[in-house]
Amino acid sequence: MKLNIENALAFVEKSDYDSLLNEAVEGRTTLLTRTGAGHEFTDWFDVDEKVTGDVDDIIATAQQIQDMSEVFVVIGVGGSYLGARAALEFINSPNYNLMSKNTPEVYFAGNYMSSDAIAEILAIIGNRDFSINVISKSGTTTEPAIAFRIFRERLEQKYGRKGAASRIFVTTDKSKGALRKVSQEKGYKSFVVPDGVGGRYSVISPVGLLPLAVAGVDIKALLKGTRDAIEHFKVAPAEENDALKYAAIRNCLYRMGKKVEIFADFEPALRFTGEWWKQLFGESEGKEGKALFPASVDYSADLHSMGQYIQQGERIMLETFVVVENSRTALVVPHDAEVDDELEYLAGKTVLWANSQVHAAVEKAHFDGGVPNLTVTIKDMSAMSFGELIGFFMFACGVSGYVLGINPFDQPGVEEYKKNMYRMLGKPGFTD
Amino acid sequence: MKLNIENALAFVEKSDYDSLLNEAVEGRTTLLTRTGAGHEFTDWFDVDEKVTGDVDDIIATAQQIQDMSEVFVVIGVGGSYLGARAALEFINSPNYNLMSKNTPEVYFAGNYMSSDAIAEILAIIGNRDFSINVISKSGTTTEPAIAFRIFRERLEQKYGRKGAASRIFVTTDKSKGALRKVSQEKGYKSFVVPDGVGGRYSVISPVGLLPLAVAGVDIKALLKGTRDAIEHFKVAPAEENDALKYAAIRNCLYRMGKKVEIFADFEPALRFTGEWWKQLFGESEGKEGKALFPASVDYSADLHSMGQYIQQGERIMLETFVVVENSRTALVVPHDAEVDDELEYLAGKTVLWANSQVHAAVEKAHFDGGVPNLTVTIKDMSAMSFGELIGFFMFACGVSGYVLGINPFDQPGVEEYKKNMYRMLGKPGFTD
Repeated sequence: MKLNIENALAFVEKSDYDSLLNEAVEGRTTLLTRTGAGHEFTDWFDVDEKVTGDVDDIIATAQQIQDMSEVFVVIGVGGSYLGARAALEFINSPNYNLMSKNTPEVYFAGNYMSSDAIAEILAIIGNRDFSINVISKSGTTTEPAIAFRIFRERLEQKYGRKGAASRIFVTTDKSKGALRKVSQEKGYKSFVVPDGVGGRYSVISPVGLLPLAVAGVDIKALLKGTRDAIEHFKVAPAEENDALKYAAIRNCLYRMGKKVEIFADFEPALRFTGEWWKQLFGESEGKEGKALFPASVDYSADLHSMGQYIQQGERIMLETFVVVENSRTALVVPHDAEVDDELEYLAGKTVLWANSQVHAAVEKAHFDGGVPNLTVTIKDMSAMSFGELIGFFMFACGVSGYVLGINPFDQPGVEEYKKNMYRMLGKPGFTD
Repeated sequence: MKLNIENALAFVEKSDYDSLLNEAVEGRTTLLTRTGAGHEFTDWFDVDEKVTGDVDDIIATAQQIQDMSEVFVVIGVGGSYLGARAALEFINSPNYNLMSKNTPEVYFAGNYMSSDAIAEILAIIGNRDFSINVISKSGTTTEPAIAFRIFRERLEQKYGRKGAASRIFVTTDKSKGALRKVSQEKGYKSFVVPDGVGGRYSVISPVGLLPLAVAGVDIKALLKGTRDAIEHFKVAPAEENDALKYAAIRNCLYRMGKKVEIFADFEPALRFTGEWWKQLFGESEGKEGKALFPASVDYSADLHSMGQYIQQGERIMLETFVVVENSRTALVVPHDAEVDDELEYLAGKTVLWANSQVHAAVEKAHFDGGVPNLTVTIKDMSAMSFGELIGFFMFACGVSGYVLGINPFDQPGVEEYKKNMYRMLGKPGFTD
C-alpha cells in the first residue's frame, strides 16, 4: 500500500508538517517502548500468537463449523463486530450471504438493541442448521448477552442441550467473566480475547479470525499483511513511513483548524472498512474535547449526495481516499448503437478504469474546492491487502493519538452512557 | 410524529431561538409564495399528481412487473436511488432480499462506478426472470447509463429484443433526453421525473414510487403521510410547527458555532433513512462555505464505536435522534438460570422497551457531555409513518435553507466534479 499526501501538503506550512513528522517519530518511540498512556493495550503491534491465538486451531474449528452449519451467527458489538464485518465485506463481498458459495451464510447479531434485527435473522435461518459464536470480553455486555440468550434458546429447542453445546463457540476473557464460566461448565469450545488488545484492535485476534475463517477467508494471509505492514512501520525512517506521515499530516491539518476527516472509498465493499475506521479513530482520539470527527462516504454513490457539501460547504474537512487498484471483476462498457446516452466514447473500456478516473476527478475537484486530501492506494481486494490496510491504520492511529496528547487505548466516555443505560434498564447496583 | 427540542434549547439563548423561529416563519412564506431562490423546484410541497404521476398506473405496472419478475433491478444514483432504498429498508427491511416474500427481490444498480457491484447482481440474478427500471432525468448520467447498457444487453440475450423491451421500465424527463427518445422508439413503458422536483425530493414521484410499489409498499399510504405532514406544516403556527422549530433550532446552534449535525437512529432499518437525510440537507445547504456537516450513526451499534467521540470529543456537534415507538416484532428477553450474565433483571421485558431505554440513556449522557440534542419520534415502521417523517424533513429543509440564506434547491458544486470526471474519462466536448 502507498500513501500520497501531496494534495494535503499544499495546504500547510512545510515547517509545521516537518515538526509534526518529528512528533510522530517521538510518538512511535512512545508506542514501541510501551512508555505511553494505555501501553498495557498495545500487544496488537506484535502480531504474534499472544494476539492471534492458535491460528491452526481456529482454522480447524472453522472447518467443523462449516461442516455442520448452513448459517453461522456471530454475536458481538463494537470491536467484536465491525472488524469481522469490514473484512468479510472487503474480502468476500457485501453480497456474501446472497451469493452462491461453499461456506455458511454469516449474520451479525447482538450489535443492535433491536427486536426486528434478531427476529429477522431467526426467520432467515428457518429450519436450517446453524451455529453461533458469542464474542464478549466481559460476558455481560447487554446487546450480545440478550442475543446469546435468544439464539441459545433456539439452539437448545432444535438440538437439545448437548447438541446445542456443540454448536456454541465462545470468544471471551481467558479466565474471568460469565462466558468463561459457562464455557467451562458446559464444555463450549472457547477462544481468548487477549488482555493486551482493545476491542477496536481485536480483528487480528480470535474475535475477528474465527468468523472470517468460517466465511472462507485466508486468515493467515490477512495476518501476514498486517504483520508485514506493522513491522515496516516500526523501523522505517519517517520519510519512507506512510503511517508516520499520515499521523503527522492529519494532526497538522487538525491544528490548522480542520474538524472533520472523511474516509472516502470507491467500492461498496469498503463501506464497513469505513465504519471500522470510524471506531478506530473516533474511539481512540475523541477525548478531552479533542480530535477530528471521523465520517465516511462511499463513492461514486455519495458524490451524488454528499458531493455538493464537500465541494462547497464549510471548509472544515480533510478527505482520506482509499483506492483499490484491482477489483474482483473487470466488466467492460458494452457498445450500444441505439441509445444516444453520450456513452459510446467509453465503450470497450473497463468499469474499473472509469472508477480510477472518478478518483482522479474528485481528487482534483475537492482540492480545487479547498479540501485537503490524501490517497491510500492498495493493490487488490485480497485478505493480504486488507491486512496491510488495517495494519497501516492501526499503527498510524496509535502514533496519532500520542501526537494528539491523549490515551489512544482507553474509552472512558463509553462508561457514562453505559451507567445511564443500566440505571434506565433498572440493573441491580445501578438504580438510585 | 413529534419533535422534542428541550435538550437543545438548554444550550441557546431563548431570545436567539425566538428570533430564529421568526426567520423560519419568513422562510416558510418565501417557500410557499415561491418567491425565493430555486422556487422552480418546489412543486414537491403540493403532493399532487403533477409530482406523483398517475399512482394507479404505477401500481398496475408494479403488478405486471411482480407477475413476470423474480428480481427487479433499479438503476439510478443519488436522488434516483437513496429515497427508494431508504423507504424499502424502513418499511420492509434491510434484509428484504434475504427474507421469504411474494414480491420480487429488489437490487439497486448504477449507483456506484463499480464492476464488482454490477457483476454480483448479475450473478445473483443467475437464470431467474428479471426486469429493470432505469431512472435518470437527463438519461446521460454516467453510472446509471453504464449499468443500463449492461443489464439491457443481458435482457436482450435472455429474452430477445422484443421480450427485453417489455421488461424495461424508464423513469425520465417528460420530453427531453436519451431515455425519453429510446422509450418512444422502442415502446418502453415510461414514467416522468417531474420538472419541478429536484432529485433529493423525488422519492414521492415515480422515481421512488414504482420501485416501492414493486416491493409491495403501500405507496398511497406513504403519500398520504407526506401530504398530511406537509399540509400541516404549511399552516400551523410556529409554536405548534415542528418543521419550523427544527429549522430554527438547528440554525440557532449553527450560528453558535456548531459544525456537525448527527442523524442518530435506533434501528438498523433506518440506516438508509440517514443516508437519504444526508443528501437532503448536505446537498440543499452545503453552499457558499456554509452549513452543518451532516453525519449519521445507527444506535445502539454505533454507541460502541462513535459513542466515545460524541461523549468526549470536540464539542462541535448537535444530535438529532429519530425514535420509532413500535418495532415490527416484540421479542422478549428469555429467562436463563444458567448463565450469570447479569441479565436476569431484564428477563420478560421486550427488546423494544430496552431500545427505548437506550435512547433515554444516550439522550441524557450526550446532553451531560455537552451535545445539544433533538428527538423526532414516529409511531411505527409503516409506509404512512415513513411518509410523515420525510415530509417533515423535506419541509424543514426548504425552510432551513432560506433561513441559512442559500438556494436550497440547486447543486452547483456537483457540476465541478462532473466536468473533471468527463475530462478524465475523455468525453467529447470536455477534453481540453
